[in-house]
Parts: sequence; C-alpha cells; structure tokens
Amino acid sequence: MATSIREQFRVTKKTEIKDENAALKPLSSGDKAADKVTVQTLALQIAEQQAMLYASHSKKVLVVLQGMDTSGKDGTVNGVFGSVNPEGIRVISYKAPSPLELQHDYLWRIHQQVPKQGELAVFNRSHYEDVLITRVHDWIDAAEAKRRYGHINDFERMLSETGTVVLKFFLHISKEEQRSRLQERVDDPNKHWKFDVQDLEERKSWDDYQKVYLQAIQATDTDHAPWYVIPANSKTHRNLAIANIVLETLQGMKLAYPPAKKELAGLKVS
Amino acid sequence: MATSIREQFRVTKKTEIKDENAALKPLSSGDKAADKVTVQTLALQIAEQQAMLYASHSKKVLVVLQGMDTSGKDGTVNGVFGSVNPEGIRVISYKAPSPLELQHDYLWRIHQQVPKQGELAVFNRSHYEDVLITRVHDWIDAAEAKRRYGHINDFERMLSETGTVVLKFFLHISKEEQRSRLQERVDDPNKHWKFDVQDLEERKSWDDYQKVYLQAIQATDTDHAPWYVIPANSKTHRNLAIANIVLETLQGMKLAYPPAKKELAGLKVS
Repeated sequence: MATSIREQFRVTKKTEIKDENAALKPLSSGDKAADKVTVQTLALQIAEQQAMLYASHSKKVLVVLQGMDTSGKDGTVNGVFGSVNPEGIRVISYKAPSPLELQHDYLWRIHQQVPKQGELAVFNRSHYEDVLITRVHDWIDAAEAKRRYGHINDFERMLSETGTVVLKFFLHISKEEQRSRLQERVDDPNKHWKFDVQDLEERKSWDDYQKVYLQAIQATDTDHAPWYVIPANSKTHRNLAIANIVLETLQGMKLAYPPAKKELAGLKVS
Repeated sequence: MATSIREQFRVTKKTEIKDENAALKPLSSGDKAADKVTVQTLALQIAEQQAMLYASHSKKVLVVLQGMDTSGKDGTVNGVFGSVNPEGIRVISYKAPSPLELQHDYLWRIHQQVPKQGELAVFNRSHYEDVLITRVHDWIDAAEAKRRYGHINDFERMLSETGTVVLKFFLHISKEEQRSRLQERVDDPNKHWKFDVQDLEERKSWDDYQKVYLQAIQATDTDHAPWYVIPANSKTHRNLAIANIVLETLQGMKLAYPPAKKELAGLKVS
C-alpha cells in the first residue's frame, strides 16, 4: 500500500534538517515541464475543493508557511493557491510586530486573522516567529520557548476542535541555495525591493535557525496541526509537494456542495 | 480622439437606469469566444499592474461592486481579479450588519477593511447598502439618505487624499435577466446554496431599487471616487468593461517597481 504524500513529508522525531535534504525531489517525474503542468492541475483541483469549502460555509482551513528568507513562501502562495477564487482565500503576511501588537500577547494578532467559516487562510510567517527569531537572538530563553510551545499547541488544538483544519509547512532550502537566491536579488535591480540588508544579518545565524526550527517543529507537530518539512531548493518540486498535501487534506475533509432545498422544487420565479 | 472606456461608462447626470440598457455590449467584438480571450488577457495585465502596486508599497486601490442579486458581483471577482497573486488582493463581502456592527456608525466596519499600502481591496457590496436597502424599505428617510451621501463623499475624499484610488461599479442587469438567473439557481440543486428566498422579497421592490440606485450613484459620483454603470446582462461583456476600466485606472497610476538600491551595487553574498 502506497504511503500518502502527507505521511511522506510529515515531520517525525527522527527528522533532521540538513542541507542535503533540501535538494531532494522524491515527487518529481524527472521532467520539470511535466511537473509544472502537474502543479497547475493540482492548483485547479484545490480551487474546486475550495469552491465547495466556500459554498458549504462550515469548516475553516488554515495553512501556515514558514521558512528562511528566500525559501519561497510568496512563490508558494502564487503557485499553489493562485487558481483559487480570490473571494474565498485570505493571505496574511506577518511582519515584525507593531508597537500596539507588542503590547498584547504574541497570539493576539494571530487570533484576529484566523479563517472564518468557508474560508481558506494562508499565513506567510506566523506565531512561529515568536519561538524562532526570538529564540535565535536569545530574546527568550529555552524555558520560555517551551512554555510557548505549550501555548501554541493549546491554541491550535482549540482551533481544531472548533472546526479549523490546520496544516503547517516548513520550506526547507540549503544555505547555498539561499546564497544563490539572495545574490540573484542583488544582481537584478528590479528585485532590489525584495532585498533587505537585514537578511544578511539573519543569514549569519543560519545554523542556529536550523536548530531552533527543528526543535519548534518537533515540539508543535500534533495530529490536529501537523508539520510538513518540504525540500524546497527546487521551486517546482516545492509546489508539487505542498499542492499534493493541501489537496489530500481538502479531499480528506469530504467537502461537498450543500444539499438541495426541498422547498425550491418546482418554484417558478416571476 | 477616442473616448476612454472610463469616460464611456462613467455615470452622468443624464444617465438613466433602464432595462434596455442592461443588454448593451458596446465593447464586444461580436465574437463571444474572442471576447473571453480578451478578458483573460486584461486579467493578466491587471495582475502585472497589481504586482507593481504590491512591490511599490505606497498607493492603495479600492474597488466597490454593487448590483442587484445575481448581477454578477462574485463572477466579476473571479473573472477580472482571478489572475492576481492572492497575496496582494483582499475581497470583503459585506452581509447584513452584525449586532456589534449595528452599535457603531455604518462606516465603522467599512473603514476597518479599507486597503493598506500596496493592497488592492474589492468590496462585494459596501457602505452603499446603507443608502440602498435602507432607503427602499424606508428604514431611513430622504433627508437621512442625503446626509449619508455627504458622509460617504467626505469619507471617500479622505481615502483619496490619503493615497487610495477608489472606483465603483454598478452592475446593471434587467429585471428579466434577474428572473432568468434566479430560475437557473432554482432549477439546479447544486446552486440552491446561492438561493435565498429573501431574494424574491427584494425582487418585489425592483423599481424602487432602480430609483434609489440612480439617486445614490449620481449623488456620490465624484472625480475622486467615480461610479461606472456597467451593462451586465452579458457576463463576458461585463467583465470586459470592468477589466478595461480597472486596467486603465491602474495604468493611469504610473505604477513601477521601486528603484534599484545603489548600496547593493557589486555586493557579493557569502
């Protein structure tokens, strides 16, 4: 019996985040053009599922995207979710918290943006930054990180128990791949707006990031809010893996258009 | 000199909202398939403009869609804006106000959802409901409606003066076209979820709606927030007209990617 693609990429206690893994392409057909066509087909199937999610107006879906700078979070939004009717999807990009947000607990701004009934929300970065960058720079210590894993697991379980399907993706690129993508931004003046010198600062903490990512992911992987570690050096393979996992998840929800209304049988509009 | 498509559909003091106008197709090539291809091309051009809006992270764009039930507001979102990267667009569908919203002024929930820098927001229904359904059912009198036109003009001028480009569309269908579309929903059990018996109640006030629509549109058409009256019996022509007007407007904003950063010249990422 074939393993589902979800199982294939689900984080386990044995998972390691190593540069060589970032280049793997287990789902690839070996033909990039063919893989791109497959991604487009999957994206359309996701759009069909989403139309039923929207129509049935009951369940909610939350997709969390995390990864180092240049790991392809924006590209994933466009590649995997670009075919969905804009009316049923909401993408929230979390930046450094504002002064007002900092006066609240770190889940405050997150909770405000969770999906409503029938909605698919995609978080481009998320509450996980509060156990990642904060931990790498020692703004919080290990004990506080552990407390926060607890808060996050509790919060996500509540979301799950109140009708939200949560899925979380770590887009895994290698350090060399990041170098190459940052260099590409530097070399193309049209991409300078995407480049922040601060990214070079964060890059210096690469190894620490890999460590705290693995720790956070393993501590917050639950059956109600699973983590998937996606080899993401290849953009096409990244989209292929994520689109498959999203589609499997939506199909698993057994979404359907609402039943016919008996009172409408034979009605003539005048 | 050719009239711009914006000028062609802009409401004037002479505009009448009459059933026969809803069927006009002045932009059509006469070949529906060709027109659909044109819409798709325009949608991709809108996506390109939107990418620059997002990158330059300065201006904001607000599109308001209004029209009777079944006039094609949802179809417009998907047809005209379906190619835009979901990260840069936000669609807000306004329903009957909640008890909390009713405790505030009617612009409160609107103001919360206006676009931020770099964002394109589409309102599927809007604050205009507060001078339409309310007026048709005499929940407010003519004097109050007039006061509200003033509030709305003031509010939209403020948005405009603080960097938001506002454009407003009335999707104009005929009474017979609505009948046919409602009947189609009744006859297709898969579309029953879109059908609300209340729609038949509202349909009884068709003539009153046409009257208050025209009044509201003429009273709130301004150079900073123009109204366009779109013949919408033909879905393809509706998308053709709206896509052209949106694209003309975005092109008129002279959007561009941010300039290169001099400090990045020659930088080597290590």
